[in-house]
Amino acid sequence: MDSLDDLIRDAGAAAYCLYASSDNAAMRHMTRFVTHDPVTILKRIDKPPLMIVPQMEADRALRESLADVLTRQQAGYLEIFEHEKDPWKIQAEMIHRLCAGPYLVPPDFPTALTRALESYDTVYVDSSSRLTAHRAIKTPEETGWIIRAQRAAEAAMDRAVSLIRYADIRSGVLWHEDSPLTSDIVRYEMNKVLLAYDCTARDTIVACGPETAMPHCTGNGELKAHAPIVIDVFPCDNKTGYHADMTRTVSRGEPAGSVSELYTAVKDALLMSERMVRDGVSGAACYQAVRDYFSDLGYRSDTEGFIHSLGHGVGLEIHEQPSLSGTGGLLHAGNVITLEPGLYYRDIGGVRIENLGIVEKSGFSRITDYPLEMVL
Amino acid sequence: MDSLDDLIRDAGAAAYCLYASSDNAAMRHMTRFVTHDPVTILKRIDKPPLMIVPQMEADRALRESLADVLTRQQAGYLEIFEHEKDPWKIQAEMIHRLCAGPYLVPPDFPTALTRALESYDTVYVDSSSRLTAHRAIKTPEETGWIIRAQRAAEAAMDRAVSLIRYADIRSGVLWHEDSPLTSDIVRYEMNKVLLAYDCTARDTIVACGPETAMPHCTGNGELKAHAPIVIDVFPCDNKTGYHADMTRTVSRGEPAGSVSELYTAVKDALLMSERMVRDGVSGAACYQAVRDYFSDLGYRSDTEGFIHSLGHGVGLEIHEQPSLSGTGGLLHAGNVITLEPGLYYRDIGGVRIENLGIVEKSGFSRITDYPLEMVL
Repeated sequence: MDSLDDLIRDAGAAAYCLYASSDNAAMRHMTRFVTHDPVTILKRIDKPPLMIVPQMEADRALRESLADVLTRQQAGYLEIFEHEKDPWKIQAEMIHRLCAGPYLVPPDFPTALTRALESYDTVYVDSSSRLTAHRAIKTPEETGWIIRAQRAAEAAMDRAVSLIRYADIRSGVLWHEDSPLTSDIVRYEMNKVLLAYDCTARDTIVACGPETAMPHCTGNGELKAHAPIVIDVFPCDNKTGYHADMTRTVSRGEPAGSVSELYTAVKDALLMSERMVRDGVSGAACYQAVRDYFSDLGYRSDTEGFIHSLGHGVGLEIHEQPSLSGTGGLLHAGNVITLEPGLYYRDIGGVRIENLGIVEKSGFSRITDYPLEMVL
Repeated sequence: MDSLDDLIRDAGAAAYCLYASSDNAAMRHMTRFVTHDPVTILKRIDKPPLMIVPQMEADRALRESLADVLTRQQAGYLEIFEHEKDPWKIQAEMIHRLCAGPYLVPPDFPTALTRALESYDTVYVDSSSRLTAHRAIKTPEETGWIIRAQRAAEAAMDRAVSLIRYADIRSGVLWHEDSPLTSDIVRYEMNKVLLAYDCTARDTIVACGPETAMPHCTGNGELKAHAPIVIDVFPCDNKTGYHADMTRTVSRGEPAGSVSELYTAVKDALLMSERMVRDGVSGAACYQAVRDYFSDLGYRSDTEGFIHSLGHGVGLEIHEQPSLSGTGGLLHAGNVITLEPGLYYRDIGGVRIENLGIVEKSGFSRITDYPLEMVL
């Protein structure tokens, strides 16, 4: 891939600017620094990235960041504050003192800061996706971080599956020890497992029955026998910020025949897409093949049926490039992606199965190491 | 407070636009909808907010969001995609079909979407802080959510303090069961407690000795006796998204006299600031009073000493309005704020104590219910 310097040069700019906390993947990728408050980062051609931080973060930033570090005071904050109180104009003047412009910024750069910078020089928006495409090709170290998070996800999944498999069934409801087994209990037990791996998962999905027709419904209440239970967990490794992502759909005891039919179709679609993925194939082609496959079986892809994309890249963001949707571009060796076909009907419920893996020259190298088994 | 409609009218706009996931406090406050992918929200004068979501989120959004819901398809996505492939221009055209403009956006609105909207009509940036000031005055329900998170924080703190208090001491190192007690072990035990309260904390600080001189160093390695240990925990309630925040500095056995002196100064500064806070006092005045107090004791406020603000609002964001910094504005009844004086010296270490409370007409109503005790 071309370097960030090339990107800046090609845009006719002198520097690339970020203003973000480490929740922003571009910021964390460039600096590896963790902070919950936004900081300014300036990448000038032929120079390392420079990060402007509050005094209280200076020593930690020097120790923990890949970027060079200036305190706001060193960047002129106090002098500027004498004549300018608007926080965005202060940020812009600090940037301008370091680089006269023009500036290149990402599409999500704050409008207020763009406008303040425009009083000095042109601000170009990088709409090239070259940076996100670069981030989407993982280094072996990054892939290792994702695999570590995936092992945590599998351990958490195993806890959930065990709870469901060994639950008592009373009047159609799953029971664990002396109380009904609920979505919240399963989620709590999964999260405890994740914590032991130093991972955190937000909004883990443990949805049962009619709830499964809504792909991102996190789930509430008692789990039932003979009904689909969608379990989708996407932990973030606390140390690295990298994610994993996996989904299984299970049923304690045989579900309705219509659910089993969805499961068979989704499982076959998953296996088919795993065979299609390789370097140079487009995400759109994979998506379309699954959509066509479902269509041949009589399943829709509009307001019901296959209502989301086939998959997505995974990294510092849970959803990142490449996209395996109707508009997805080429897959490249080194991409780490999920494949997650699903079918959703309001009167039947939903089934989704999701595996994680690496795009390679010759195919898809599955990272997920967990059985495909619906009926427990 | 004035309404959002007034804000839109005063700006000369026809609608207020957001483009954000629920990690964005303005978005979550307006819709109470949780999604990890950004969605477009349009608030037109005299109409409820309208949220444009992917098909897969439609049923859940109808059920869980305060906003009206349109799918992207209903908003014209597929028709627009026929002639426009740029995702930001597609978003802009969907917005334009719903409202001709002019548009008002928050300062952090994505630059790419601003520029796409500008091809239709003027885009004004709301630099008034009226919305953040409005969010900073909590409803009783919101305050209840923060208090619930704070009880979780205190339970986690109590677990940490117990581990330190009852640790064995071997050659100056704290031991728990058969291994040295580390920052990671304490953090893990705290996070387990938080999970039982359905809260998640990121980057909980358990820093010891020299690390405490860096306020946001999360801490690594073995904990030592006779040294300051800064414990700072800021959980987020998984259900509501609201935070709490608290810090204690402890030492197993008497620390160096210089640390004890810092502790006394910081504790007195905290109690002084708790007496100052009330409706109508400025955050800057509170900050300056603490700074002056430290200065009288010979403690600096530049690259060492008191190197951060006195406190901040807490809510959907861990750091939000009002600010108790040198530039902080007026405090208002209903604000929920932290007071967290601290002193940091590279050759001594750091001490920070942080309480959470409500700004009231007549004073500060402390929420934090946890002892101020350094030596364990």
